[in-house]
Amino acid sequence: MVRFDAVVVGAGLAGTTSARLLAESGKKVLLIEKRRHIAGNCYDYKNEYGITVHKYGPHIFHTNNSRVWKFVNRFSKFRYYQHRVLSYVDGKYLPFPINRDTIAELFGVDLPTAEVESFLREEVRRSKFNIPPQNFEDQVISQVGERLYEKFFKGYTIKQWNKDPKELSADIAKRVPIRSSRDGRYFTDKYQGIPVQGYTRMMERILNHENISVLLGVNYFDIKEELKSDLTVYTGKLDEFFGYSFGRLEYRSLRFEFITYDMEYYQPAAVVNYPNDYDWTRITEYKYFLDEKVPKTTVSYEYPVGEGEPYYVVLTKENMMRREKYMKEVKKLERSGEYIFVGRLAEYKYYNMDQVIEKALERLSFNA
Amino acid sequence: MVRFDAVVVGAGLAGTTSARLLAESGKKVLLIEKRRHIAGNCYDYKNEYGITVHKYGPHIFHTNNSRVWKFVNRFSKFRYYQHRVLSYVDGKYLPFPINRDTIAELFGVDLPTAEVESFLREEVRRSKFNIPPQNFEDQVISQVGERLYEKFFKGYTIKQWNKDPKELSADIAKRVPIRSSRDGRYFTDKYQGIPVQGYTRMMERILNHENISVLLGVNYFDIKEELKSDLTVYTGKLDEFFGYSFGRLEYRSLRFEFITYDMEYYQPAAVVNYPNDYDWTRITEYKYFLDEKVPKTTVSYEYPVGEGEPYYVVLTKENMMRREKYMKEVKKLERSGEYIFVGRLAEYKYYNMDQVIEKALERLSFNA
Repeated sequence: MVRFDAVVVGAGLAGTTSARLLAESGKKVLLIEKRRHIAGNCYDYKNEYGITVHKYGPHIFHTNNSRVWKFVNRFSKFRYYQHRVLSYVDGKYLPFPINRDTIAELFGVDLPTAEVESFLREEVRRSKFNIPPQNFEDQVISQVGERLYEKFFKGYTIKQWNKDPKELSADIAKRVPIRSSRDGRYFTDKYQGIPVQGYTRMMERILNHENISVLLGVNYFDIKEELKSDLTVYTGKLDEFFGYSFGRLEYRSLRFEFITYDMEYYQPAAVVNYPNDYDWTRITEYKYFLDEKVPKTTVSYEYPVGEGEPYYVVLTKENMMRREKYMKEVKKLERSGEYIFVGRLAEYKYYNMDQVIEKALERLSFNA
Repeated sequence: MVRFDAVVVGAGLAGTTSARLLAESGKKVLLIEKRRHIAGNCYDYKNEYGITVHKYGPHIFHTNNSRVWKFVNRFSKFRYYQHRVLSYVDGKYLPFPINRDTIAELFGVDLPTAEVESFLREEVRRSKFNIPPQNFEDQVISQVGERLYEKFFKGYTIKQWNKDPKELSADIAKRVPIRSSRDGRYFTDKYQGIPVQGYTRMMERILNHENISVLLGVNYFDIKEELKSDLTVYTGKLDEFFGYSFGRLEYRSLRFEFITYDMEYYQPAAVVNYPNDYDWTRITEYKYFLDEKVPKTTVSYEYPVGEGEPYYVVLTKENMMRREKYMKEVKKLERSGEYIFVGRLAEYKYYNMDQVIEKALERLSFNA
């Protein structure tokens, strides 16, 4: 029979990266994925109109870590797309994060870069909030003042988390990026891009190694008992692994409505945020990512929801305390050398794509 | 644990169709595939230039069977591409199969449709061959005469099979299509097309059923003993299943050289045959299939080879006799109700794509 040295649970970025590193170190790996496709929430595909759509919402790869950048570039070329986001506020498409141009267009005051900071200080001075900030609302107001908070953050946060921003931790907003310059990019990382043939194809290549077998459409927990291997790399939900023994960890999910319009472009940027209008948080127009020249255009309307596939950890105190309990169990298992827990779901931690890969590289580099 | 009612071996058209039909009849199915991708030799992907390339050579879907057409249309829209092939002969791109235009351009005689047949009869009359035809060469000459045989068939056949056409069975050429009309299509089937998002995506959809699990990168024979299920649908190599007990069945394989050129189009049709010049049999230019509008173009040069992935059965007497022996064993296994052998490899039979699906529909329709 085929003997596997390692079992990897989950075919997202954490799982595929881990499987590859194990395979390259000479181990026979079985990767198990519940869904019928690889690539986790990075899954994308060309739709019938020739547009590469991200099934689980927009994924833009960005990193400052050259080791991570080098790793992904082994498996795909990248289009050097630099992400820009507009926020639809007061009937205008305004650059977001807030920068000098946002302020100029919103308030009609074209400030020199040097004066943006004093403008914001004045905005903050005129606002009411607790010092030190007690919650998300206080935290953002302490940085941009009430007016900008109300227009750009409040409504979006309520939609995103379905919670009063006063109940959310100030930590979430610790680093609201605000730019006094005219830099309109969403990310300022050194390396940014989209895999030219999509994430799914890139991850197919990551998995294309003679030591890797992939089992799709099977729940790990249904076959766990029958798997014998020296090492299990688990990238699934943390609480599920332990049978929810300390209670359920909350996840925020998303629902997407994909619509294709018979027009060349639908909106002036790949992503437009809707903090105040409508029930969706944002609209993504996919053809921008790879500059696909086709006559139609596909967009997704994004609605945060409570139930569904897990997307975001929910940083409430209760969840964080539960996480701690689970992580103690994880540490015990990891000390045995038989388990590694890695990734957004398994660590119940908000990671960007590059951070997931970075973690996997750290934890699974046997050749290094 | 997960209990599978059926195991399907091989993720080509035979395997994926069978898995789907079993799943829809309520059976839990495990599909096992040796390669790390599904879709068998239909596997395609968008390359970095935006061109959908068929990794294992050009696949054009064509059928007269409306049940088959209906089946594939459940899983993909089709671009209604009608395949045209040119044959590069005497420095000219000529329509193939031979039709009225081919004769006109080659010989400079623009015959009315009604006279094409008598022209060919005259060609045949002036030629030497055995009656009844003893081999491939005789058979073709008896239909088109020596001149056309030499220019269009002889060299191609030698390249394709690496055999003297005199040694090949007349059966292979039983139906050389020759058209007295100006119909320049390669196929005349009622339904023709290419899945708009490619074959791989279509087959992903075929497999996207809650009762289907897929295991990639595992050789069935390595885990055979551990699989317990009521039914095994085998679509792999016939001789391999029986441990080559009656000897090896010969397969003809292909080697592809993919090259991307910095030009809009490389040649005037998707496929150009090279019966006489160079070592390749044909060049395929992929952007034609889906009419992909991109600045570069990717082509494949196709070289028949003896060793490699199995593509074509080799219709020699020896192979046919071996096949008979194996098929007797197959019949025994199938009578037990525990096995079904279906597809090009498992039946050692030349099937077009639609015929494979037709067979699978016949053998595995429990709902019908």
